[in-house]
Amino acid sequence: MTRTLRLGIAGLGTVGVGVVKIIRRQAALLEARTGARIEISAVSARDASKDRGVNLSGYAWETDPVALATRDDVDVFVELMGGSEGAAKDATEAALAAGKDVVTANKALLAIHGQALADQAEAADRVIRYEAAVAGGIPVIKSLTEGLAGNEITRVMGVMNGTCNYILTNMEAKGLGYNALFDECAELGYLEADPNLDVGGIDAAHKLAILSSIAFGTKPNFDGIEIEGIQRITLEDIHQAADMGYRIKLLGVAQRTARGLEQRMQPCLVPATSPLGQLEGGTNMVVIEGDAVDQIVLRGPGAGEGPTASAVLGDICDLARGLRIPTFGQPAALLEEAKPAQTGLPAPYYLRTALLDKPGALAKVASILGDAGVSIDRMRQYGHSDTTAPILIVTHKTTRAALDEALSALNATDVVAMEPVALRIEEL
Amino acid sequence: MTRTLRLGIAGLGTVGVGVVKIIRRQAALLEARTGARIEISAVSARDASKDRGVNLSGYAWETDPVALATRDDVDVFVELMGGSEGAAKDATEAALAAGKDVVTANKALLAIHGQALADQAEAADRVIRYEAAVAGGIPVIKSLTEGLAGNEITRVMGVMNGTCNYILTNMEAKGLGYNALFDECAELGYLEADPNLDVGGIDAAHKLAILSSIAFGTKPNFDGIEIEGIQRITLEDIHQAADMGYRIKLLGVAQRTARGLEQRMQPCLVPATSPLGQLEGGTNMVVIEGDAVDQIVLRGPGAGEGPTASAVLGDICDLARGLRIPTFGQPAALLEEAKPAQTGLPAPYYLRTALLDKPGALAKVASILGDAGVSIDRMRQYGHSDTTAPILIVTHKTTRAALDEALSALNATDVVAMEPVALRIEEL
Repeated sequence: MTRTLRLGIAGLGTVGVGVVKIIRRQAALLEARTGARIEISAVSARDASKDRGVNLSGYAWETDPVALATRDDVDVFVELMGGSEGAAKDATEAALAAGKDVVTANKALLAIHGQALADQAEAADRVIRYEAAVAGGIPVIKSLTEGLAGNEITRVMGVMNGTCNYILTNMEAKGLGYNALFDECAELGYLEADPNLDVGGIDAAHKLAILSSIAFGTKPNFDGIEIEGIQRITLEDIHQAADMGYRIKLLGVAQRTARGLEQRMQPCLVPATSPLGQLEGGTNMVVIEGDAVDQIVLRGPGAGEGPTASAVLGDICDLARGLRIPTFGQPAALLEEAKPAQTGLPAPYYLRTALLDKPGALAKVASILGDAGVSIDRMRQYGHSDTTAPILIVTHKTTRAALDEALSALNATDVVAMEPVALRIEEL
Repeated sequence: MTRTLRLGIAGLGTVGVGVVKIIRRQAALLEARTGARIEISAVSARDASKDRGVNLSGYAWETDPVALATRDDVDVFVELMGGSEGAAKDATEAALAAGKDVVTANKALLAIHGQALADQAEAADRVIRYEAAVAGGIPVIKSLTEGLAGNEITRVMGVMNGTCNYILTNMEAKGLGYNALFDECAELGYLEADPNLDVGGIDAAHKLAILSSIAFGTKPNFDGIEIEGIQRITLEDIHQAADMGYRIKLLGVAQRTARGLEQRMQPCLVPATSPLGQLEGGTNMVVIEGDAVDQIVLRGPGAGEGPTASAVLGDICDLARGLRIPTFGQPAALLEEAKPAQTGLPAPYYLRTALLDKPGALAKVASILGDAGVSIDRMRQYGHSDTTAPILIVTHKTTRAALDEALSALNATDVVAMEPVALRIEEL
């Protein structure tokens, strides 16, 4: 007798509709692969009357996601509403309390409440699956949690916000400034309702918090991530970086160091010829480094109906096949506190500022950097405007602390015409 | 009480030693992740006295792999000997017959005997895992079988023989001919005992047969693969391809078409700026395309102690966690015969030949191609030697059948000075 897995799907936006479509279209294939019939019992969304281009008449309709999550005819609660608080959280907790497994695409929920939810799930002997929460269609959660389970992970990196990568690569490709590309993204519908989630790096940082937890066996620690958005990147930075053989990416990096866990989401320079440097448009990429495997690079679409639904279905198929593991790859009780590294690993930095046209200005900059222990690899003064002289500096490896000391000393002088832009150069 | 998973490891070459090292070094981490203690009960290899740089004294030694595979204190038989026949096959069959699960890195065994082994495993309610058999450390089997289980796969492609990619990329980088690079690989130990397994495309074709089976739900059909090695690729081809914006790769492609399953392992031209085109040295890459996910690209080390051991450990951890699925992603009885496509999908082709210096030679070539229905996109005659004129042709999309007809007509003329080289241009 064929088993049946009964789903309750909350949220019928792009992803939810994509999931319904696949389940309807591929019923036979999914049954062959999983040995179970995957059925939708009920769905839930704000507006029941809206035409979503897919036939929903065979499914019960619940207006309240909590009611959906706790229905007797639901085995798996599929949460595709989004948001770290409110309905998504309430319904997920209710589902676990009612003995349902959970599949979700909600990165904010897991980054912020992941530990509590993992505790709750394991106490109830249920599982939470969330492949779609990180890097869209790329099976990165599975690769990291299962495929690379024999590795001590040393570093995880990723370009995980397609909108930011679209903006940065098109600044170079089209020669347009940040604001023009931001406006283009707004028109194309590429931005979240709160655009700061995208361009401020928060969405990508949610994803990094999840990867970091799996990679290092630590409790998700979103607050421990140093976050910097792409809003201050200028066309000038893009061109200067390209001149030196780099591209600027909003790059998330989580790395275990002797001083604790380093988690950063910030614009970085990466070699233009590296896989990360070559990544264009809305595509995502995750780089995983382990003591045995060396380096694995995963690339694919980071958003969209099909790719995200593909990830949700991967999780559903796992449940249909009876594949069950703890939320973050090991029992929630074993996860350690993520002790944030107080100072990051040293790296070379790219600095751009402008000097007032005063005698000795350049010498003052050089001596301030030297006093802070920041050694200069390359320095260039270029294209003089009326009263200020833009300068560009690439440092040798230095700590962020030493650099910050130099930057604040620079700001305190009377020779600097703008607050310096400082971007880390990430070694790959 | 912690469960224990007891291994018997046959084959203590590079990979076997790598597996033993990880299990010894990461015991605590593996137990945290899997909830089970992973122990080695016994090992087996040809020479018991050899120093392998790892302490084996705590493990029973079996000279006969079949005896190892059937020991009472072995739950999982780990087959790292290689070869499609003989000891590897005998011991794998014996292990399944004795009720053991099997983890193997043996692509030839699975490509050729995969269906029979899958049948046997499922009859005995055992599983066969083989992540290490394809693309080294890249978790491609898991990604395809589980992560992308919600997709109807449309095409799988890969550069899966590091030695061939090393030769092809270094022909360009070092400006050396095929033979010089082949000799270099021999000295570096990059070649199999029978080098034709590498440069003849057979090793990579074994891997393709496995991917193809999972992707399309068909019985592994190694014999159905059109195989062509890289031995005829010249520096001239490399340079001409580069001039036109392409790189030459030994590329495996499996694709479902209306006329059946197309499986090819052959040197192809791919765009130089694509991820496949940019792949250098011994690194492997697999591209998976599905109806929902669009395109996923996986990149990583294709061989070596650490990466291959990482893949073996991924499988062992899955078994320790109780994750069990059928060998090729669905029950062996459901796998269909792979009906080979009699003619492949049309593609543009790169042709290189040389003409004898006779009046009307070029016109004859052009008219023969035209008669066969092969339309010319670009044609170039260049660098005249004494008596022959090399020419280069890029065709519009054509079938291989039409092209073969043209090539045999060309060979039958009195104007062609060498058998033409014809390479498919794969569209990505």
